[in-house]
Amino acid sequence: SIAMGTDTLSEAPCFPFGAGEKGRSADDKWLLGGKGANLAEMSAIGLSVPPGFTLTTECCREYCSNWNGELPPSLWSEVTAQLKVVESKMDCDFGSDSNPLLLSVRSGAAISMPGMMDTVLNLGMNDVVVEALSAKTGNARFAWDSYRRFLEMFGNVVLEISRSEFEEELDNIKFEKGYFEDNELQVDDLKTVVSAFKEVYVKNKLSFPDDVYEQLRLAIGAVFGGWNGDRAIKYREVENIRNLLGTAVNVQSMVFGNMGQTSGTGVCFTRDPNNGKDELFGEFLIDAQGEDVVAGIRTPQPISELETAMPEVYAEFKMNTEILEKHYGDMQDIEFTIQEGKLFMLQTRNGKRGGEAAVKMAVDFVEEGLIDKKEAINKVLPEHLDQLLHPSFSDTESATYKNAVVASGLPASPGAAVGEICFTNEDVVTKSEKGIPCVLVRDETSPDDVAGMYASEGILTARGGMTSHAAVVARGWGRPCICGCSDIKIDEAAGTLTITKEDGSTVVMKAGDCISLNGNTGEIMAEKMGVSPPAMKGDLEQFMEWVDEIKEIDVLANADTPDDAAEARKNGAVGIGLVRTEHMFFEPERIGQVRQLILSKSEAQTKEALDNLLPYQRSDFEGIFKAMDGYPVTIRLLDPPLHEFLPGLEDEEVLQKLSSQMSMTVTELVEEIKSAAEVNPMLGLRGCRLGITRPEIIEMQVRGIIEAALNAIDNGVDAIPDIMIPLVGKVQEFRDQAKLVRATADKVFEETGKTCKYRVGTMIEIPRAALTAHEIAKEADFFSFGSNDLTQMTFGYSRDDVGTFIPEYKRKGILLDDPFVTVDVEGVGQLIKSTVKNGREVKPDLKIGVCGEHGGDPRSVEFFSNDAGLSYVSCSPFRVPIARLAAAHAATKKKG
Amino acid sequence: SIAMGTDTLSEAPCFPFGAGEKGRSADDKWLLGGKGANLAEMSAIGLSVPPGFTLTTECCREYCSNWNGELPPSLWSEVTAQLKVVESKMDCDFGSDSNPLLLSVRSGAAISMPGMMDTVLNLGMNDVVVEALSAKTGNARFAWDSYRRFLEMFGNVVLEISRSEFEEELDNIKFEKGYFEDNELQVDDLKTVVSAFKEVYVKNKLSFPDDVYEQLRLAIGAVFGGWNGDRAIKYREVENIRNLLGTAVNVQSMVFGNMGQTSGTGVCFTRDPNNGKDELFGEFLIDAQGEDVVAGIRTPQPISELETAMPEVYAEFKMNTEILEKHYGDMQDIEFTIQEGKLFMLQTRNGKRGGEAAVKMAVDFVEEGLIDKKEAINKVLPEHLDQLLHPSFSDTESATYKNAVVASGLPASPGAAVGEICFTNEDVVTKSEKGIPCVLVRDETSPDDVAGMYASEGILTARGGMTSHAAVVARGWGRPCICGCSDIKIDEAAGTLTITKEDGSTVVMKAGDCISLNGNTGEIMAEKMGVSPPAMKGDLEQFMEWVDEIKEIDVLANADTPDDAAEARKNGAVGIGLVRTEHMFFEPERIGQVRQLILSKSEAQTKEALDNLLPYQRSDFEGIFKAMDGYPVTIRLLDPPLHEFLPGLEDEEVLQKLSSQMSMTVTELVEEIKSAAEVNPMLGLRGCRLGITRPEIIEMQVRGIIEAALNAIDNGVDAIPDIMIPLVGKVQEFRDQAKLVRATADKVFEETGKTCKYRVGTMIEIPRAALTAHEIAKEADFFSFGSNDLTQMTFGYSRDDVGTFIPEYKRKGILLDDPFVTVDVEGVGQLIKSTVKNGREVKPDLKIGVCGEHGGDPRSVEFFSNDAGLSYVSCSPFRVPIARLAAAHAATKKKG
Ligand SMILES: [Mg+2]
Ligand SMILES: [Mg+2]
Repeated sequence: SIAMGTDTLSEAPCFPFGAGEKGRSADDKWLLGGKGANLAEMSAIGLSVPPGFTLTTECCREYCSNWNGELPPSLWSEVTAQLKVVESKMDCDFGSDSNPLLLSVRSGAAISMPGMMDTVLNLGMNDVVVEALSAKTGNARFAWDSYRRFLEMFGNVVLEISRSEFEEELDNIKFEKGYFEDNELQVDDLKTVVSAFKEVYVKNKLSFPDDVYEQLRLAIGAVFGGWNGDRAIKYREVENIRNLLGTAVNVQSMVFGNMGQTSGTGVCFTRDPNNGKDELFGEFLIDAQGEDVVAGIRTPQPISELETAMPEVYAEFKMNTEILEKHYGDMQDIEFTIQEGKLFMLQTRNGKRGGEAAVKMAVDFVEEGLIDKKEAINKVLPEHLDQLLHPSFSDTESATYKNAVVASGLPASPGAAVGEICFTNEDVVTKSEKGIPCVLVRDETSPDDVAGMYASEGILTARGGMTSHAAVVARGWGRPCICGCSDIKIDEAAGTLTITKEDGSTVVMKAGDCISLNGNTGEIMAEKMGVSPPAMKGDLEQFMEWVDEIKEIDVLANADTPDDAAEARKNGAVGIGLVRTEHMFFEPERIGQVRQLILSKSEAQTKEALDNLLPYQRSDFEGIFKAMDGYPVTIRLLDPPLHEFLPGLEDEEVLQKLSSQMSMTVTELVEEIKSAAEVNPMLGLRGCRLGITRPEIIEMQVRGIIEAALNAIDNGVDAIPDIMIPLVGKVQEFRDQAKLVRATADKVFEETGKTCKYRVGTMIEIPRAALTAHEIAKEADFFSFGSNDLTQMTFGYSRDDVGTFIPEYKRKGILLDDPFVTVDVEGVGQLIKSTVKNGREVKPDLKIGVCGEHGGDPRSVEFFSNDAGLSYVSCSPFRVPIARLAAAHAATKKKG
Repeated sequence: SIAMGTDTLSEAPCFPFGAGEKGRSADDKWLLGGKGANLAEMSAIGLSVPPGFTLTTECCREYCSNWNGELPPSLWSEVTAQLKVVESKMDCDFGSDSNPLLLSVRSGAAISMPGMMDTVLNLGMNDVVVEALSAKTGNARFAWDSYRRFLEMFGNVVLEISRSEFEEELDNIKFEKGYFEDNELQVDDLKTVVSAFKEVYVKNKLSFPDDVYEQLRLAIGAVFGGWNGDRAIKYREVENIRNLLGTAVNVQSMVFGNMGQTSGTGVCFTRDPNNGKDELFGEFLIDAQGEDVVAGIRTPQPISELETAMPEVYAEFKMNTEILEKHYGDMQDIEFTIQEGKLFMLQTRNGKRGGEAAVKMAVDFVEEGLIDKKEAINKVLPEHLDQLLHPSFSDTESATYKNAVVASGLPASPGAAVGEICFTNEDVVTKSEKGIPCVLVRDETSPDDVAGMYASEGILTARGGMTSHAAVVARGWGRPCICGCSDIKIDEAAGTLTITKEDGSTVVMKAGDCISLNGNTGEIMAEKMGVSPPAMKGDLEQFMEWVDEIKEIDVLANADTPDDAAEARKNGAVGIGLVRTEHMFFEPERIGQVRQLILSKSEAQTKEALDNLLPYQRSDFEGIFKAMDGYPVTIRLLDPPLHEFLPGLEDEEVLQKLSSQMSMTVTELVEEIKSAAEVNPMLGLRGCRLGITRPEIIEMQVRGIIEAALNAIDNGVDAIPDIMIPLVGKVQEFRDQAKLVRATADKVFEETGKTCKYRVGTMIEIPRAALTAHEIAKEADFFSFGSNDLTQMTFGYSRDDVGTFIPEYKRKGILLDDPFVTVDVEGVGQLIKSTVKNGREVKPDLKIGVCGEHGGDPRSVEFFSNDAGLSYVSCSPFRVPIARLAAAHAATKKKG
């Protein structure tokens, strides 16, 4: 074998850690790996970490490329030198027959690669050492159990013997003894296991090295070599991990919490992760190892009792928690072990927390001077706010909850919903009027169902994706919703819902039965579960103030009614980015007029319908202006295909009534409805195409807007109407519609002798509009990206139909994100950026926003704010706080 | 009034024309206007044009802007000087009481503005001159008729008296006399008319100037002034005419063909415009004016008889035609007048011609040395080839034809079709097998109708636009087709077709009645009309050789069968740009297997269907490779939504059969068919989305392609398969499918021990693909624009649904061209250009073509060739010659 030096390394090959070691900075991940850097950092701030050392990632690179799979002598002598230091710190000796030191050898790359970690524990064990350990600890069972575990890990990680070969031997012995659990094994049984495990080595024609240094040398080499194994290469390929030098190797002394009444082990959060209170939250076990805590055989004690049990240890531990919080500026999740009265910190990391806790701690940390506002903002995640803003199930980790889950679908809108099953719109409306909470269960929803959806606690559909009608409407109203649950089958006629569980068994539920939906996870429970209400507190208000100070982009809301608008203001929206005027058309007393308008064959019928609709529109608009006093209200003119407003062909009563209203026969009406159907309605007669072919509708809408604004102004409201033309693809379309809008406004001004300011802008939602933005910007007062439609057309995806292939696309990694949830930066984002650039070249101050679903998605908000440079995002009222937070996150990211 | 000079002009104010005048070049349109330049040019080449002079457009500009609406003295003295020259040439005097000269005064801008022409004829007439003219010509009726016409034109054009005031007077006199036609008016009647017309002037408080110079001065001023009239400004605005200086004024001596037996008038083409033969084609009348020829009261003589009637005039005329053809390098359409034995050429222009004539003349002109090949190519228009390549109705100008027209629709595919009405696919197939020509009449067609469409002479639909299924398929097969004829109503059950004529009356036709369709015009005749077959001649072959020499872009064809491929080769396609593999699936013996494949719930059923389909695919591909020996064959993998292949829900027999084939109940089958339906199928599960979710179909298709290629090669055929992945939007989709294609090919190579070359490329038809072309180009061997889908998605138009708004868009000028017919250069073209640029940056030699309908549209071909720099266009076999011609036109345009 060739001996090679370590002179090709840019840094030292080994770095020590443990109490008293200065360590390196946490930024040295690339050299020490994530775990090594963390251990070095804890050492550096003075915590007692079990001592050890890290072999760098550079060594791994050289091992794989230049050292021919050998550790060069210069490196090995460095390793043995470091080991000497560890021995003296731990006051015991590696391979000793009286006071032995055991080591762990672990891989650790700069990027966390879950499931790819190579770990060998208890290294330094042999037939002599096991007896020494047994004698030293007075615990022969522990010593022999450690030995058999080591034999298995070493054989598997270092010599690549299949784990199953060891497991088989263990199972045979347990079977012979009639044992079911590992912990039933006695000392003699464990000795038999050790012999059997050694036989496994022999069967594989491999020898187990009794020499503990040989164990160490082989283990280090195996971890380095594993970096270039097929499995690791494949893993990095799939996860797209590139540009790493290799893995580091951490050699660390083992500590044992099971060495009597002065030893122990525990886990602890530095604050309460549920409510954020500044008190330790954790538990410990005396004379136990970490796995005993997890196994749940003994009940751990609360951390507060450690103060009584081991006052000095507790004092050190408490101080450590303060040091760590100060150092990391965050609540920590800590693992620790006490070996014979000495405290060792095994691991610390930022602790996971609930929404309420996240906000409280962020505010507290600032007040305690631990972090600044910018850092505080980054401690609260969108999920945290989402939890805070929706009711949630009380304890989703409990067995009660888990056992209650019967099926799951797509988590389309968050929150917890509990109510009686209703299969029809009418059923929900009737019951909810009596105060009975209901869950609407449908194959899929349509605009006809909106009254029922609004009145429901939550919505469950068998079909449709994250952006189906049900999902979009539910999110808009903050209703929990589970979509596309293929495990359910609805028989509306029979009034039954059949749920097929994972094991193939079925649950049949009837209308009126209680059902619970977890919109955060998509889980469905066939019973009434307990829920906790949303917690709104002073801390949240304080926090959101900081959010608004820091963010650089405005957050507006999409709202269709005065109520929605009021909700939006409450959530901090500084205007309405989208009023979908057509949503106002679906209410029962209006839909008949809308249908008359669509089917009308005479000017008189058209005029009558328009005259009847005008007051509704006007009063809706007036209410919205009032709720948004002083903030802009962006009103989109009629957008969806008209035939969406026509009744279904099965509803004979409605058909009968409508046909007599229209003075036609039912047959004629059915023909009309059929002939209005389109092959691809998404790409058909809608948006400004409607406005151009049916200008009288636009005239009515604009009249409603302008009259409402004038009325509002008369009542002292500062009404700011922005009129928005949908689905423009050519500047000529915008020109036609803008001219009609302005002429209509002028007519109202002339009639009333009053005037008001208003702007006329356009949606950018057709790829062609984005491509010709420089032309459209010359004539439009503002742009608003309709990112849903823009995504549909840029991808050629119908969001109603993607359910058939998007799951497969995600499975195959063709799509990483659903482009209807997170904006596709590469494609759609390109159009957005060029639109902004070209639009602002023509009008440097052009107001440009986005009013698609993406306006409420944090990663999309970052793109809109930092990369696209938009003026605002607009999302559903319930998402406004999250969008504000995401905007603040984006701003801090941008500032670096 | 202010006297101003002409020193602000850059050129002389007046230019003379007429025999002996050198004139200026024809390029002086901007200064002399179109008409003036033409007269100058005819003069310059030595033809006897009635002498006169042109006042330049610069004068008009000055008249309107600086001269305050007056002719400055310096200009007027120039006019009188020029007039002197004309008097001497014509040997008569302006305003003379014995031998008077009459003038015409006409406007004429650089750009032709039909309907905006100001014309005053017979100027120089008054009570004295009329008597002199009467005496000189011996034709008092003519003299007085000329006078009354002059009074009307002068009053209207110069003094802006409404024409209706004169017409009313004329009608009164005719009524009193009991006349119906103007030509019943006698000399005395005409004198009464003249008096009455003079009274009109008085009534309008305007005076008719007896002074002929005053007449001239006022007429010139009026023409100049008219340029800035409201009507003219509006006209230029609407027609988007800009950057013109003004109109020129042409003052020309009147000549009269009605001055006895030595006078006459006629029109003549220099060659036969119907067949291109090199012999004069025209007619003349002795002692007549131009309008007499048009009025049709006397029957004109063929031009050949002029040789006998006036040998010298004929000789000069014949010489003139040769001079003109040589000068213009084209067949001329000439108007001439003979005044007392002297020939005057009034007008010449390039003559309109039929397709056969266009090709023959182009070839003859080159052979005669008149023009070069490049010029010859520009003499033949796409419409000419189109006529040549489809049968056409014999005489569409005849009253017989015009009276037979009962309705009209969109001219979706050219040619003449005559046959018996069939309302069903089956009816067409059955009858056509018996040799009965049929026309398929349907509300709209679907893929189920293709067999009937193929077997029909032509197709008529009540619904659908220029790119509906019927239109696209019909053009592909060269079947005449009329679409979207809203005047027809089909009652399939009753077997009747009801046509509502323009006057509101109806014609009811039955299945089996004869109907004729003119696919060039959209006209429908409720009877059997005579047709002429397509004329293919040696001249055409010669001409197309030149076309291929000059064009710079390849022309391939879209073809789905070996027959189509053979047709494509015959028409000069150098490869297949698109094989739509799914079209092979619709044949009756295959569709059942396709349906089984779609509905299959078990691997066994799937495998059976695929095994059954493979031989069909393989033999189709093999036939196409054979037909295309040595040329590339681009095969697109399965593209359309699968549910297109499923039967309709009304066809119980098919449902019955299929359900037993699939071992389901009919109810289950109906459920399956319903659940396969999509909201927007165009944007749903199709293209590579199918290939990714149902890879087994792609494996079968690729196996078919590769096995076919290997078989073909074994049989000595040079098979060049290009495999094309449809509907790619992300490079990851392409990667997935390309990998599958290559793995399948490798498997076949391994099984057979043979190999062949093949390429794997992609359609660019999703905007996102265009936006990420730089990524896709790294992995794809070629690109082919699917310009139909790209247009659909860039505009957000469903081509099945645009019929509801495109007509209105065209009416309002929002769309000038149908973007599915002529590529939208501004929007879609932008994506195409950036794709080519980005793709070729990655792979400089990347083969990029287009296989949408646009590949056969001349203006689109110019864009693809000259602006986008594509490698090829691909269109339906019948359009190949037209695309080749368009490509040659583009090349000559590019070369300048
Ligand atoms: Mg939209
Ligand atoms: Mg396509």
